[in-house]
Amino acid sequence: MPPDGPSLQLTADGRLRHLLTLDGLPRAVLVDLLDTAAAIAAATGGKVKKLPVLRGRTVVNLFFEPSTRTRTSFELAASRLSADVVNFDVATSSTTKGESVLDTLRTLEAMHCDLFVVRHKENGTPDYLAHHVRDGVSIINAGDGDNAHPTQGLLDAYTIRRRKGADFPRLAVLLVGDILHSRVARSNLHALRTLGVGDLRVCGPRALLPADLDPGVRAFDDFDEALPGADVIMMLRLQKERMREALVPSEAAYFRDYGLDARRLSLARPDAIVMHPGPMNRGVEIASDIADGRQSVILEQVSNGLVVRMAVMARLAGALPP
Amino acid sequence: MPPDGPSLQLTADGRLRHLLTLDGLPRAVLVDLLDTAAAIAAATGGKVKKLPVLRGRTVVNLFFEPSTRTRTSFELAASRLSADVVNFDVATSSTTKGESVLDTLRTLEAMHCDLFVVRHKENGTPDYLAHHVRDGVSIINAGDGDNAHPTQGLLDAYTIRRRKGADFPRLAVLLVGDILHSRVARSNLHALRTLGVGDLRVCGPRALLPADLDPGVRAFDDFDEALPGADVIMMLRLQKERMREALVPSEAAYFRDYGLDARRLSLARPDAIVMHPGPMNRGVEIASDIADGRQSVILEQVSNGLVVRMAVMARLAGALPP
Amino acid sequence: MPPDGPSLQLTADGRLRHLLTLDGLPRAVLVDLLDTAAAIAAATGGKVKKLPVLRGRTVVNLFFEPSTRTRTSFELAASRLSADVVNFDVATSSTTKGESVLDTLRTLEAMHCDLFVVRHKENGTPDYLAHHVRDGVSIINAGDGDNAHPTQGLLDAYTIRRRKGADFPRLAVLLVGDILHSRVARSNLHALRTLGVGDLRVCGPRALLPADLDPGVRAFDDFDEALPGADVIMMLRLQKERMREALVPSEAAYFRDYGLDARRLSLARPDAIVMHPGPMNRGVEIASDIADGRQSVILEQVSNGLVVRMAVMARLAGALPP
Repeated sequence: MPPDGPSLQLTADGRLRHLLTLDGLPRAVLVDLLDTAAAIAAATGGKVKKLPVLRGRTVVNLFFEPSTRTRTSFELAASRLSADVVNFDVATSSTTKGESVLDTLRTLEAMHCDLFVVRHKENGTPDYLAHHVRDGVSIINAGDGDNAHPTQGLLDAYTIRRRKGADFPRLAVLLVGDILHSRVARSNLHALRTLGVGDLRVCGPRALLPADLDPGVRAFDDFDEALPGADVIMMLRLQKERMREALVPSEAAYFRDYGLDARRLSLARPDAIVMHPGPMNRGVEIASDIADGRQSVILEQVSNGLVVRMAVMARLAGALPP
Repeated sequence: MPPDGPSLQLTADGRLRHLLTLDGLPRAVLVDLLDTAAAIAAATGGKVKKLPVLRGRTVVNLFFEPSTRTRTSFELAASRLSADVVNFDVATSSTTKGESVLDTLRTLEAMHCDLFVVRHKENGTPDYLAHHVRDGVSIINAGDGDNAHPTQGLLDAYTIRRRKGADFPRLAVLLVGDILHSRVARSNLHALRTLGVGDLRVCGPRALLPADLDPGVRAFDDFDEALPGADVIMMLRLQKERMREALVPSEAAYFRDYGLDARRLSLARPDAIVMHPGPMNRGVEIASDIADGRQSVILEQVSNGLVVRMAVMARLAGALPP
Repeated sequence: MPPDGPSLQLTADGRLRHLLTLDGLPRAVLVDLLDTAAAIAAATGGKVKKLPVLRGRTVVNLFFEPSTRTRTSFELAASRLSADVVNFDVATSSTTKGESVLDTLRTLEAMHCDLFVVRHKENGTPDYLAHHVRDGVSIINAGDGDNAHPTQGLLDAYTIRRRKGADFPRLAVLLVGDILHSRVARSNLHALRTLGVGDLRVCGPRALLPADLDPGVRAFDDFDEALPGADVIMMLRLQKERMREALVPSEAAYFRDYGLDARRLSLARPDAIVMHPGPMNRGVEIASDIADGRQSVILEQVSNGLVVRMAVMARLAGALPP
């Protein structure tokens, strides 16, 4: 199932129909999602209150790969829009073993579910489902393989805009870690290029950098060289399987070469912000004091994730005026 | 625990007290449930909206055998009646290991739960619990062993009535597969006989046909011979354990002899409908093109399951006027 | 993480900030919780109805140790106060493996969750989290190691007060079983001493009695000798691991020496009540006919658990007038 999100996720008149990828998502649509999130944050005054936007609608968390944290964020976003939420945890379901993904979708559609939040280890599963849903039903990609994690890309862009302002051409943003296998990195690169970030950099061990990087992106394998001038440092989670695959020698060696500590942070701009999509491996990709430090916006990312996901759901439901 | 649903599930004045089995359920009660489901479907205009029928009541999904699909259908039916729903998944609970089924029920009753949806691999567990609940608490059997699955039988009858009309004596209905071990088949046979289906047939390998079939039911072990004249063809799911038990040689052999494909479907009436309780084994009991074909009502069954379950819950709660 | 609940759980002006332990909880605060529970029970007229006390707030069940029964009690208590409830079951979460307890808390705080119900096998985890939460967020200890289970202690005190009246100095209360390892026993002893129970006794095999019992508590290893004059007999659940550790020879021997049966019950006061926190091992610590008998208040404890947990949540939220 090759991903073909770009062509699928907009209606003929350019409105959001599904959210599958940030690759090719028009700038106006992306900015509208960030603005909608900001409006929701303002309306609810910091503390998120319940809005009646999705009352009577049903949101399904259709997770073929378990993730308590991401599922909870979507669950809370949906509840705060007054939707009914069903957690359909296929990873632990025995009934649905052997049933095709599409039959599971069709069954839930037939139960009048409106919005599917899909996570799957295979690239393109959300696109495949989006191809097949009936009118009025939307798919949100909550992470597919190493392809895309668009709500993460949006919440990161939202966080950067809140902290650093909307003048993206003036910003230098650095992503650090396993760029090659990271759907978070891919979705961020798509968002940040669409928003016109002037200086976009990635850094990691050569074995974990993609060969086909966009020409506008600068690649580094020396972390110290990558840092000067950075306004934003986004650390990625190191997956344990990279060590099993011998792409990374050890946690200690990884931290030595690619971990963010106080010395390295001092090489970036003094007002640089530190980001991480979570969950963190403290002492592996990031030192504990930096994760909890003054420049860290890691918990803001989590909070912003809620309003951004509320914004996506509201837009897909055709709710809220522009 | 021998099932004794028939005598337990009605009040002295003939109203529904529990739903344990369709065996012996009076025709008037059964038809009232179908009519109530139709009224709910009409009131909510296709798209199911929330009704305040169970506001303030608590429905427990008490599943001793996991089933994400059936549990979700009951969960959504309860939410759409505005109940609070608790999923008490005993299959994965460690605390309750060693606690008796009855102690688990008593505990939840003491938490003021009103309606228990029970699935258990032992025949008669819902009847046993119904014997012991206190006043005002109702049990719905969501499948017990190979005994009964009454809401499935109801939703199938509802689907047939919507598609083929209420003149059941003129209909020929064929059930195909493992009739012997299927609680779906048993509940369907009870419902269809009560409704007075004129021509009731079952078909399957001899080892999977019951010895004590009702005299009004015709049994076939040749699928081609069973099909002519059928208005409704209901395919059953083949359980993998039938092959381990050597009751069925292989999936391929089963499909050759008892799978529904285009050639076989053409032997039935041209307007015959194809049903399946799901989840399907495509290519085992049913060809994929037939499952998705023009005559298939398989997804309608799923949708109808919601309104039928809402109707059962509403009736048990004494809500909705007749 | 040594527990330090007493100093943490009250605000400077003496109101409840967290509920971590009953050890050191002032009598006035404890009695206020019992009174609040009684007010909730009265307001909802036996049958628990929904109250709007926590509308718009989010309660997280953060269970690092699975417990379907306790989780369900908290879940229902929160729903009946109109909160949104999220079950964040860390015991089965793969994402959060390797993430620290504190990072999990911080993440959920950042999602604007207000109240955390925490169960953990390590003593002091709820205290540790309470140290680190931000303003406006409260922790309820739902059981930590063998340290404390304060809502159980409260619901037991509430049950005793309803059944035996508030004149605690005149009461004789006997706890029987594995006093040494039981957080239920510890929390009960704290509550009952604070309430001024005149005659407080514990009974169990010597290997399961604490060496450092409070001087006001009398210890017995002969059950028959412990019973005369008891108004309340509280049986504790025997954990299977005590037999693996050879602290208890066998279930049969345990029942012979420390099981409550009809003969033993007749040694207590004729109007003595029998309690058990559940789930029961029938035939191990309690005979089945006694568990279900006239003097048993075991199911009342479960019902009382709901209103007591609603009272705790309401007080932590600063809701309901005194």
